Amino acid sequence: MKCRSCRQPAVVDVRRHNAGFCAKCFVRHCRDQVERAISDHDMIPVGGTVLVAVSGGKDSLALWDILLDLGYRADGLYLGLGIGDYSDESGRRARAFAAHRRARLVEVDLPADAGFDIPAGARAARRAPCSACGLSKRHLFNAAAVEGGYDVVATGHNLDDEAAVLMGNVLRWDLAYLGRQRPVLDGGGGFARKVKPLIRLGERETAAYCVIRGIDYIVDECPMSAGNKHLGYKEALNRIEARSPGAKAAFYFGFLDRVADLVAGEAQSEREGLHPCPGCGSPTVADVCAFCKLAARAGGHPPVPAAAAPEGDAEDAPAVRGPG
Amino acid sequence: MKCRSCRQPAVVDVRRHNAGFCAKCFVRHCRDQVERAISDHDMIPVGGTVLVAVSGGKDSLALWDILLDLGYRADGLYLGLGIGDYSDESGRRARAFAAHRRARLVEVDLPADAGFDIPAGARAARRAPCSACGLSKRHLFNAAAVEGGYDVVATGHNLDDEAAVLMGNVLRWDLAYLGRQRPVLDGGGGFARKVKPLIRLGERETAAYCVIRGIDYIVDECPMSAGNKHLGYKEALNRIEARSPGAKAAFYFGFLDRVADLVAGEAQSEREGLHPCPGCGSPTVADVCAFCKLAARAGGHPPVPAAAAPEGDAEDAPAVRGPG
Repeated sequence: MKCRSCRQPAVVDVRRHNAGFCAKCFVRHCRDQVERAISDHDMIPVGGTVLVAVSGGKDSLALWDILLDLGYRADGLYLGLGIGDYSDESGRRARAFAAHRRARLVEVDLPADAGFDIPAGARAARRAPCSACGLSKRHLFNAAAVEGGYDVVATGHNLDDEAAVLMGNVLRWDLAYLGRQRPVLDGGGGFARKVKPLIRLGERETAAYCVIRGIDYIVDECPMSAGNKHLGYKEALNRIEARSPGAKAAFYFGFLDRVADLVAGEAQSEREGLHPCPGCGSPTVADVCAFCKLAARAGGHPPVPAAAAPEGDAEDAPAVRGPG
Repeated sequence: MKCRSCRQPAVVDVRRHNAGFCAKCFVRHCRDQVERAISDHDMIPVGGTVLVAVSGGKDSLALWDILLDLGYRADGLYLGLGIGDYSDESGRRARAFAAHRRARLVEVDLPADAGFDIPAGARAARRAPCSACGLSKRHLFNAAAVEGGYDVVATGHNLDDEAAVLMGNVLRWDLAYLGRQRPVLDGGGGFARKVKPLIRLGERETAAYCVIRGIDYIVDECPMSAGNKHLGYKEALNRIEARSPGAKAAFYFGFLDRVADLVAGEAQSEREGLHPCPGCGSPTVADVCAFCKLAARAGGHPPVPAAAAPEGDAEDAPAVRGPG
């Protein structure tokens, strides 16, 4: 197979585009897809600052790399979730990338800053680990972005992720979740603007991008995710995609084009009735926000801004830390 | 496991209901589910006549059996599709069941009555066999019901079928198809009323029903269906159901409860612009209906009512034949 752009031998094939690419043109292809997603959905305001949620995996590092190459002012945010070696390894990857690109990496460490880790949180709250983790990440990314004054939080959700989440929401026909499943969620009322610039790239492509660009990412899946439903939906979609290349993209973009507006009302009505959580100030519709409830059950507390740290040296337990 | 109803030892378990049944109570359970589907969706008018689309498989024979036991005036319609041994075997099962229940079986034979069979039709039209077959069945069931003056055509689509079709429609977000995916399609304008009374039973249940009731059905899948997408969607849903019993029912009934109305407009607007096909009189939005196009390409013709048969003895090429 030859590169679609330059006719040199191809090293990566993308079946749903029925195309191959040489290394150089593939990198450009990935950048083009990100640029197009940002432009199609008005993701990032001109001159805006971006906080990239960085896990140390292929998607978030590829995203950060591409945003920097496209000229965006993009800092990274790494959350230490206290998942043993996995967290240690992923943190190392995130820091090494930041150092190599001379980019700023903000860090929040759940055990140090909030007094609990994901395994303990999940046990105490009797939630699936991925549920406790997702809740914590959404909360902490949002708080860090609002506090740091970033215009946008960018996450590395790729086409496979979004299609799998859509599959889960569709299987339950959860209209409120479906209404929120967009590549951009507007900010306001205590919420940072959230964008997903990788929606036009599959996970095979972000992995190939990292390999070609020499980005060292953590390859293993999180050890706590084994058996979760999301991975089951990915498997189901992979089988369907193998029979019908392009099925995944048709599913996700067909939803955005023809259905998202039909169910948008459900999500909008959810934002009514929001007020600041008395524990942490984040917007919530409940008495206390879900993160503060989880933290309390796990014997922790919401991360407190440095100036108001209740005990010890403020620098020992900062809410949001810079890399050095 | 004990029978949920009578506490005797269970012989059938239904995981999504987390229940077991003895043979007698299982048969009643199946009847109850059909009765409830008919009642929930006002499928059959009081005293109405039903034409059951009978393939000789487990679903259609179970459906016919249950409708007769529930006291409905239900005739069967068997279509001979000319798929070699498979058609011979399935026709024998349908006739044997009709004879055993002393029920009336109407027969239409595609090769004899329309001059082509499904394998030839699919080849000539360059359609997937299941596509040519589905098109032919819809056309011929409808024509036979309208011509025979039946109030309702009942098909044996079970929960697995409907969930798999829904999955296909959702993967493409085909709003016109989604708008039509209901357990009842109203009649009028040349269309018979169509109902699906088995939507509350899975295919494992209709198979168990036939075994318990001693109904001899054709077990093999149609040999032409190998590799079709519908079977792929069934497999995907079966994997999801195995992890989360009840997922399939939640998917299908959640759609009916919360989404079908949102997309109903698409289907309605499709019925505008219908007129009788000049070839066969069936409603179509095109110049010539899809069945007549298929028949023409395959060197056949629409089945012609006996009185207007163009050649030979009318009894040699009837449009709709009784069993004897």
